[in-house]
Amino acid sequence: MTRPSPENVKRVASLGGGPIGAGWAAHFLARGYDVTAYIHSLDEEAKYRQVLDTAWISLEALGLAPGASRDRLSFTDDLATAVKNADFVQECAPERLDLKQALYKKLGELVPDGVLIASSTSGLMMTDIQAMCPSPERTVVGHPFNPPYLLPLVEIIGGKRTTPDAVQWAHDFYALAGKAPLVMKKEIPGFVATRLQEALWREALHMVANGEATPQDIDIALMNGPAPRLAIQGQCMAFHVACGAGGMATNLDQFGPALKLPWTRLEAPELTQELRDRMVDGCNEAAAGRHFEDMAAERDRAIVGVLKAVKAARAGS
Amino acid sequence: MTRPSPENVKRVASLGGGPIGAGWAAHFLARGYDVTAYIHSLDEEAKYRQVLDTAWISLEALGLAPGASRDRLSFTDDLATAVKNADFVQECAPERLDLKQALYKKLGELVPDGVLIASSTSGLMMTDIQAMCPSPERTVVGHPFNPPYLLPLVEIIGGKRTTPDAVQWAHDFYALAGKAPLVMKKEIPGFVATRLQEALWREALHMVANGEATPQDIDIALMNGPAPRLAIQGQCMAFHVACGAGGMATNLDQFGPALKLPWTRLEAPELTQELRDRMVDGCNEAAAGRHFEDMAAERDRAIVGVLKAVKAARAGS
Repeated sequence: MTRPSPENVKRVASLGGGPIGAGWAAHFLARGYDVTAYIHSLDEEAKYRQVLDTAWISLEALGLAPGASRDRLSFTDDLATAVKNADFVQECAPERLDLKQALYKKLGELVPDGVLIASSTSGLMMTDIQAMCPSPERTVVGHPFNPPYLLPLVEIIGGKRTTPDAVQWAHDFYALAGKAPLVMKKEIPGFVATRLQEALWREALHMVANGEATPQDIDIALMNGPAPRLAIQGQCMAFHVACGAGGMATNLDQFGPALKLPWTRLEAPELTQELRDRMVDGCNEAAAGRHFEDMAAERDRAIVGVLKAVKAARAGS
Repeated sequence: MTRPSPENVKRVASLGGGPIGAGWAAHFLARGYDVTAYIHSLDEEAKYRQVLDTAWISLEALGLAPGASRDRLSFTDDLATAVKNADFVQECAPERLDLKQALYKKLGELVPDGVLIASSTSGLMMTDIQAMCPSPERTVVGHPFNPPYLLPLVEIIGGKRTTPDAVQWAHDFYALAGKAPLVMKKEIPGFVATRLQEALWREALHMVANGEATPQDIDIALMNGPAPRLAIQGQCMAFHVACGAGGMATNLDQFGPALKLPWTRLEAPELTQELRDRMVDGCNEAAAGRHFEDMAAERDRAIVGVLKAVKAARAGS
């Protein structure tokens, strides 16, 4: 088997000529990898390079890895050529199951034995995508968030025929490649981040439909309310820290009844003892013994920086 | 009527000794106002000053208004004294309707004629709060987001007996005082931001209840996925810009069917022509003729700054 260890990956193949394919290429180039881009027609190269050049402004500002260069990108319109020397394959084909299934049928033979194939799919299940693949054990979902060259999240999950070592390898590789990998517990539609975003989005549409808020109202509320805090503390930790010494336990015991209030059109789950304990234990584990006052101070420092960064970006610098 | 124009407000009364009351006091002091704090017992002053000192670190980093000083704060445990010279009253009493109703009954007589009384309530309706108030026409909700000294959002809405000029005054005053005011269209439970947050929160609890994700998974997904982008573009504008020249119209026409997918437990509204048009028109108005590429570049600059700010805060600087 030719699967390298995650730290020995040198060449990544990014499959697809759209903004996700080009965005992934930009990310991997910035982290110092060689990248082969597979595009349907070499005519697409100019547009692809435009995405890359735009991304590079931000990637330089964040800091490039030693040796990182846009010159380490090559293009091909031949799938076999694209993947034959790849140590890792990031697939960014259009979001159509029939198309992806046909692609994985080919990739399963063309990609060197054991080398990981990760799909950028935002909605399809790997169990379905890998259905016709002759070597499905090394296929995983590796779902980025747009823009993929900036937002760190990659959601990872295998299909029914993926082996656990492939999922672990994908986690380790993405972490080494500067991403924030999240290995999901179950194959669920929308994964984790999109489900959370979609809940928020549907409530926003309800408010607009009912004349309760305009799209601009929704955005003003998000940008100036929860967002600057969510960038440093997810919603669980934000509540845990806001409740002081009592943490998430205080939050659930005090505000649990609010789950029955019509504060959104989304029905809440029953707050069972088991759910309560999972939330409390999870927050305590994540806090890892840190005092809530230290975490609140960290939160405040970050929000100050976030507010300054947003202001500076709006002013054009 | 003794209501000053918003730019002539000199003294603010902040009613309540908890973190919201002290947080509001910190904000108004930092913007250069005199502040009178009403607390139940003068024994609470030391704890109050502790909140203030913590807040001041962040407020100094963001930049104080000329003349701003913590010395311009005075304490009293007498309600009449607290409000008698106030040009604006921010009420931050505990979240109990009977208690607030009794308080507004008193405030309606004690607060100088015409001076605004704004409630920090996060869940109650002003129509209910003002029920026993003898001068309800100048009472509004002015709901901050925690921490109130940092997050800019203030959601504003009157009750049935509030006059429109009072709502407009509150909007203008909060804007002058450095906040991001959002005047709501209707009195709905949870207002706008909390409804959006609550939709996300309930979906998160469902995932934890079903063993699909841990609290830490939820937070990793939020912090590294949508959050750094939401700080510069709300969800409407994020989709509008991500869809390029076609904007929100492309988003709804292409992804509209996804509203039927089980991507969250929240049921979506019917995507009627009217809802589609409201979303598209709202985004076009908010974009105000700016090209999507300029907005994408602004987004990228902001995300770079946000990621750097979060990293620096975690490193302790």
